[in-house]
Amino acid sequence: MNKRKILNDPVYGFITIPSELIFDLVEHPYFQRLRRIRQLGMTDLVYPGALHTRFHHALGAMHLMGEALKTLQEKGHSISDKECEAAQVAILLHDIGHGPFSHVLEHTLLSSIHHEELSLLIMKELNRQFSGRLSSAIQMFEGSYPRRFFHQLISSQLDMDRMDYLNRDCFYTGVAEGTIGAGRLIKMLDIDQEELVVEEKGLLSIENFLNARRLMYWQVYLHKTSLCAEAMLMQAIRRARELCQQNSPLFASPALLFFLSHEVSLNDFDDNPELLNRFTNLDDYDIWTSLKSWATHPDPVLSTLCDGILNRKLFKIQFFDGPPTEEFLAPLRDKLRQKGIQEQHLSYFLVAGQTTNSAYESGEDQIKVKMKSGAIVDIVEASELPTIRALSKIVRKYYVCWGKTVSLRG
Amino acid sequence: MNKRKILNDPVYGFITIPSELIFDLVEHPYFQRLRRIRQLGMTDLVYPGALHTRFHHALGAMHLMGEALKTLQEKGHSISDKECEAAQVAILLHDIGHGPFSHVLEHTLLSSIHHEELSLLIMKELNRQFSGRLSSAIQMFEGSYPRRFFHQLISSQLDMDRMDYLNRDCFYTGVAEGTIGAGRLIKMLDIDQEELVVEEKGLLSIENFLNARRLMYWQVYLHKTSLCAEAMLMQAIRRARELCQQNSPLFASPALLFFLSHEVSLNDFDDNPELLNRFTNLDDYDIWTSLKSWATHPDPVLSTLCDGILNRKLFKIQFFDGPPTEEFLAPLRDKLRQKGIQEQHLSYFLVAGQTTNSAYESGEDQIKVKMKSGAIVDIVEASELPTIRALSKIVRKYYVCWGKTVSLRG
Amino acid sequence: MNKRKILNDPVYGFITIPSELIFDLVEHPYFQRLRRIRQLGMTDLVYPGALHTRFHHALGAMHLMGEALKTLQEKGHSISDKECEAAQVAILLHDIGHGPFSHVLEHTLLSSIHHEELSLLIMKELNRQFSGRLSSAIQMFEGSYPRRFFHQLISSQLDMDRMDYLNRDCFYTGVAEGTIGAGRLIKMLDIDQEELVVEEKGLLSIENFLNARRLMYWQVYLHKTSLCAEAMLMQAIRRARELCQQNSPLFASPALLFFLSHEVSLNDFDDNPELLNRFTNLDDYDIWTSLKSWATHPDPVLSTLCDGILNRKLFKIQFFDGPPTEEFLAPLRDKLRQKGIQEQHLSYFLVAGQTTNSAYESGEDQIKVKMKSGAIVDIVEASELPTIRALSKIVRKYYVCWGKTVSLRG
Amino acid sequence: MNKRKILNDPVYGFITIPSELIFDLVEHPYFQRLRRIRQLGMTDLVYPGALHTRFHHALGAMHLMGEALKTLQEKGHSISDKECEAAQVAILLHDIGHGPFSHVLEHTLLSSIHHEELSLLIMKELNRQFSGRLSSAIQMFEGSYPRRFFHQLISSQLDMDRMDYLNRDCFYTGVAEGTIGAGRLIKMLDIDQEELVVEEKGLLSIENFLNARRLMYWQVYLHKTSLCAEAMLMQAIRRARELCQQNSPLFASPALLFFLSHEVSLNDFDDNPELLNRFTNLDDYDIWTSLKSWATHPDPVLSTLCDGILNRKLFKIQFFDGPPTEEFLAPLRDKLRQKGIQEQHLSYFLVAGQTTNSAYESGEDQIKVKMKSGAIVDIVEASELPTIRALSKIVRKYYVCWGKTVSLRG
Repeated sequence: MNKRKILNDPVYGFITIPSELIFDLVEHPYFQRLRRIRQLGMTDLVYPGALHTRFHHALGAMHLMGEALKTLQEKGHSISDKECEAAQVAILLHDIGHGPFSHVLEHTLLSSIHHEELSLLIMKELNRQFSGRLSSAIQMFEGSYPRRFFHQLISSQLDMDRMDYLNRDCFYTGVAEGTIGAGRLIKMLDIDQEELVVEEKGLLSIENFLNARRLMYWQVYLHKTSLCAEAMLMQAIRRARELCQQNSPLFASPALLFFLSHEVSLNDFDDNPELLNRFTNLDDYDIWTSLKSWATHPDPVLSTLCDGILNRKLFKIQFFDGPPTEEFLAPLRDKLRQKGIQEQHLSYFLVAGQTTNSAYESGEDQIKVKMKSGAIVDIVEASELPTIRALSKIVRKYYVCWGKTVSLRG
Repeated sequence: MNKRKILNDPVYGFITIPSELIFDLVEHPYFQRLRRIRQLGMTDLVYPGALHTRFHHALGAMHLMGEALKTLQEKGHSISDKECEAAQVAILLHDIGHGPFSHVLEHTLLSSIHHEELSLLIMKELNRQFSGRLSSAIQMFEGSYPRRFFHQLISSQLDMDRMDYLNRDCFYTGVAEGTIGAGRLIKMLDIDQEELVVEEKGLLSIENFLNARRLMYWQVYLHKTSLCAEAMLMQAIRRARELCQQNSPLFASPALLFFLSHEVSLNDFDDNPELLNRFTNLDDYDIWTSLKSWATHPDPVLSTLCDGILNRKLFKIQFFDGPPTEEFLAPLRDKLRQKGIQEQHLSYFLVAGQTTNSAYESGEDQIKVKMKSGAIVDIVEASELPTIRALSKIVRKYYVCWGKTVSLRG
Repeated sequence: MNKRKILNDPVYGFITIPSELIFDLVEHPYFQRLRRIRQLGMTDLVYPGALHTRFHHALGAMHLMGEALKTLQEKGHSISDKECEAAQVAILLHDIGHGPFSHVLEHTLLSSIHHEELSLLIMKELNRQFSGRLSSAIQMFEGSYPRRFFHQLISSQLDMDRMDYLNRDCFYTGVAEGTIGAGRLIKMLDIDQEELVVEEKGLLSIENFLNARRLMYWQVYLHKTSLCAEAMLMQAIRRARELCQQNSPLFASPALLFFLSHEVSLNDFDDNPELLNRFTNLDDYDIWTSLKSWATHPDPVLSTLCDGILNRKLFKIQFFDGPPTEEFLAPLRDKLRQKGIQEQHLSYFLVAGQTTNSAYESGEDQIKVKMKSGAIVDIVEASELPTIRALSKIVRKYYVCWGKTVSLRG
Repeated sequence: MNKRKILNDPVYGFITIPSELIFDLVEHPYFQRLRRIRQLGMTDLVYPGALHTRFHHALGAMHLMGEALKTLQEKGHSISDKECEAAQVAILLHDIGHGPFSHVLEHTLLSSIHHEELSLLIMKELNRQFSGRLSSAIQMFEGSYPRRFFHQLISSQLDMDRMDYLNRDCFYTGVAEGTIGAGRLIKMLDIDQEELVVEEKGLLSIENFLNARRLMYWQVYLHKTSLCAEAMLMQAIRRARELCQQNSPLFASPALLFFLSHEVSLNDFDDNPELLNRFTNLDDYDIWTSLKSWATHPDPVLSTLCDGILNRKLFKIQFFDGPPTEEFLAPLRDKLRQKGIQEQHLSYFLVAGQTTNSAYESGEDQIKVKMKSGAIVDIVEASELPTIRALSKIVRKYYVCWGKTVSLRG
């Protein structure tokens, strides 16, 4: 059987599946599941083309990993076929622990279990099923593999994950300005003492990459409309859980119903292997199908929130540099009360949050530049641009979303 | 309130919503629903980027309509603002009657109701809600508007529908070869006696357009893998209906459950206005969520089919020039029996079908070319290429799909 | 010294120079000269972006050759590093014998010396300079290398030359419709008994490739405006030669002046090694600079022709299926006489020509398809499309160009 | 006669010539001349695709002007057809005064005449020829037209000139990272009190535009290799002039010979109308043809420089933050002397220069942002990024180019 498959990818042209093991991993239900989980959650409410999935992203990142390793080999670094496969397996599976609408549901449906922990859990389970053939990949993913650059290609500030998602998100949103020169950046990679570095002549490309990343944050990832829709989804799930725990009848797919009615912690996954199957059964479709049904639920809080999400009657949002003041919040609460929202339900329609964003994090995982002199310096030092230093400051924004135009259903 | 919105579109850059009426139609739940219906059904099993929706396609076709009308105006044809809006409304709504996986479900879930009939039904309901402001659009859509070229821009062999979907399907599948010169074709449009014609110097572009359309048929629309997946989905729905009608308990979203347990004809929609709401509540998510649940249903037929779709364990397919012979089918049935499939269930795992495809249909709605001499001739006459004549022959292919590697669940 | 250079190419992203030998060949003045010879002659009069050079095309074809060889290796065919380099050298140099405006000047300035003969001559001279390191490349180019597929990748109906130039010409002219799926075609290449074949599943891509080639012929390569400009250039050179041989003073660059005042045959190149240096000193710039000077030359024939080319006052053209009749030509001559053109100068302003074009030539160098059954068949047999058979007929068109709006200078 | 022409442009798809006057201007020899002047001089030595001309750029800028004016009209600003045409004429002709290799030859061949002064001169001459129909365009170009935003669209820090050249230079060099969102920026333009402003929600796009511009400066416009080639060209022209003035025989095209042997100042153009014709007869081809001839000139200085340019044997370059020190220069001079270069010729092979670059200039022509509050603020104030302030600092770099590997000819 021929397992060297070629997949069309509008971003790179073609992606080749490089080995049998990887072919079998791609075919595995755990990985096929990623076909049903979008990369950008509800961003398609703003950018209608942004429907690409974690499945395609993972394949794209694997493709870029192949390009990066080829570049490093061409520069004279010895990397074995086994290592190549392991690195490609690791990046392929790096996001396999993502559930639907991760950023939303990690905090509501799951008790703050981070998707990376689940990725590791699933990789270990796959390693068991594949008789230990993923061991090196897991080491690289965890950072325990001796040659450090493998981990850096998988997870660092210049990893193939970021490289692919910026590329791909640009492409599918149509935000041409976010274009990064992934091809050029990859050609500029090198290794110094088993650490990933970038040649000095790639400096402008890194600056551009960090600037593009910042642009994508504000233009796409933290777009007001997405934040509002996510806030509403979070409240809808919260409300659904509440109703569920009050034994109020509620339509939901079996997979979702389970997580609505149970509190699940990371330890539970270890104790109960069945949980992983339940989790991997959950995807975007469960959420959307349930939202549609809930839009006509007798509970006015739930139905109002869900109907709003479905039909783009979204909350308004306002940003602040500090936590929102009572002066700002009080009149909003009053208006919501005037719309007939009960006191105990106000929190569903007035949500305060914060978001942080640092396009570049100085610290352990710096982007290191190899100067023509041979010296290895942090990009912050190497760049003439004060921006890079500025980008390394964490930007924290506070916001308030509220149902300005909400009218209670039912 | 500012209703002149701009939407990012990776295909055209930007799409501008040209009027308030159109803005309000786009915001209507009937139209927002198209966000949840993919243009290419299960084609993403082959082309993982092909996730674009009928929502984006409808907006794209509206955009091209604007470009086409501008070209015609620049060539001196008088077209009023009202007519422009009506034509854009008509193309925007031309596909609004599509349900999920139309080509599959029109024949199983609905009793052979064609999506165009539903589009008209919904347009009439919207016309009621918008106090008659869609009347001209409906006339253009139906072909009763006096100036015939409007209908031809909406629905003919060179309409803005085809123009956008070929463009868009190429883009998202990554099949670069299918690229049509939509921009050039539109610049070549003209009107002769209120009929749509193409300038002679656009001849090569039309030939290319028809060739590209043929390529997309075989490479994408009738791709073996998609046909197999669709055949499996059709059987899964058929089985689910059967179980439903036998009162076997079956998880399904409320919207889907209704259509599984009722036979609905076009007349029923007239008699029962509530049906339209039920229909517009149905989308891709209902199908996928149900498939996931059915994959573990106790009925081995249903669960085997659904698990196969979800995890890409698909039927094999073989094409024939004529109906498949008993010589071909009998051994396949034997093998299925050996796998333990009961006699009455064989038809779920051995599906014969046919598909027809004519890239160009000579007949009433020919593509007319305006020669430099002033004469108006059919593209078949104008082209030197025998292909065009060949493309106008209907190609009928027969196929058999069967569960070659199926192993019954449960 | 690091000779692994990377070049930006808007078409493919990046082109890597794969070896030291190739780096040195690229740096050689004979190859650098191709920077000054445009791929599409005067086509930029119609498509202003079409300014790309034979230099870039040769590098692009070399890049595609690398991709093709990698694909073949991945399919299990053994191809040595030496062979890879030789094949890349051969395609890099396949056009090195082109002079400026080849199609025009091969018939006027040079006595019908075909550019392939000059390419071979130059390759042999380079082989001498590089101590025989180009011997295998020359064998591949000539077709004497034992493994035939190498020659087919360099020069056949599906060679890397055509693949790059169609791609590149599309890109720079902006004729999007001509897009070929070069990436996909290359992935479909295979070898059968040392002959190049295409996998059956690449059939649609080849059909598309041949259709695209036909489109480019009529839309670009044989565009009326280009044909007219080339006819005028041919006459201008003819006139300049005449004046030169009459010892009329004429400004021209040294390199051009030499060829204007000498008749050079292919044999002369063998006898006189200096000739090759003279020839490689000639490029587009000599022609354009001279045209500019000649536009004010006292000879009204020469100056009228040159001024017309420079300022886009071009001849008209008309096509015919057979040779133009005297009935057509006589009145044109009369009109030219009325404009004051002398009898012996009529032929400069009334030019009859013919052009032939067969998008696919059946015969020795067929495109061979490897069917799933293992059989090897000609594309004409493999394709369902009558077009392919039709494309294999030679299309011969006759034309007449004449100075319809000419007004004699001086 | 139909003067509504459509031109293919790989960057924007199509460019429509919007009026008869503009058609006639495009056909004028002064404008056709721009076909023979490249936008990026010798940058193709680094980026082989960068062969696009000022002709194509001027048309592209005119196209963007049309888009910008349409946006402004759609936002309710009244702009007459006459004004539209004038603005498009002005941007079309804004660069018409460019000679070949402007940045080089303005300082050697012409006595520091700035190309904008020549543009104005030519526009006035055209205005004479076109009976005053360019008067408004000239006012807009000069800044004397009452409605200031027209001038700002033609010449300011966010003008259609920059917008097109960044777009176009990115495209043809293949430096994808420089992509600006021209489409989006234009949609964000507005007018406030007859001044051009950008809507607040365009802020990220402007930041990206300024960053991209900076990237293009260092990656392309001030690329080391280009600077070296330009320095060599400057010295070659200087040497040729010297030889010319010493009456040493020197091949050159008539147009070039004139400027080599005369000192021409701006005033001379007023006094001697013939000069304009001489100037507009000069283009890239004159330079290249002469360089080729000079590469074998008996003068070793001239021939060495020219041969180096033609065959990419370029100077080395080194950058400094301050003027180069004698410590650095002295040993270089020694080495050149050792290579046999005479004392009086050292300056041809050791060139010190400086380059300044400010991606954003705060001052009169700021980019003004219209905040949602209605306030109009400078981009430096509006942006959170310290970069923008940093970009507004002038960066001055000093460099030394020298013939490190030079070996004197002859």
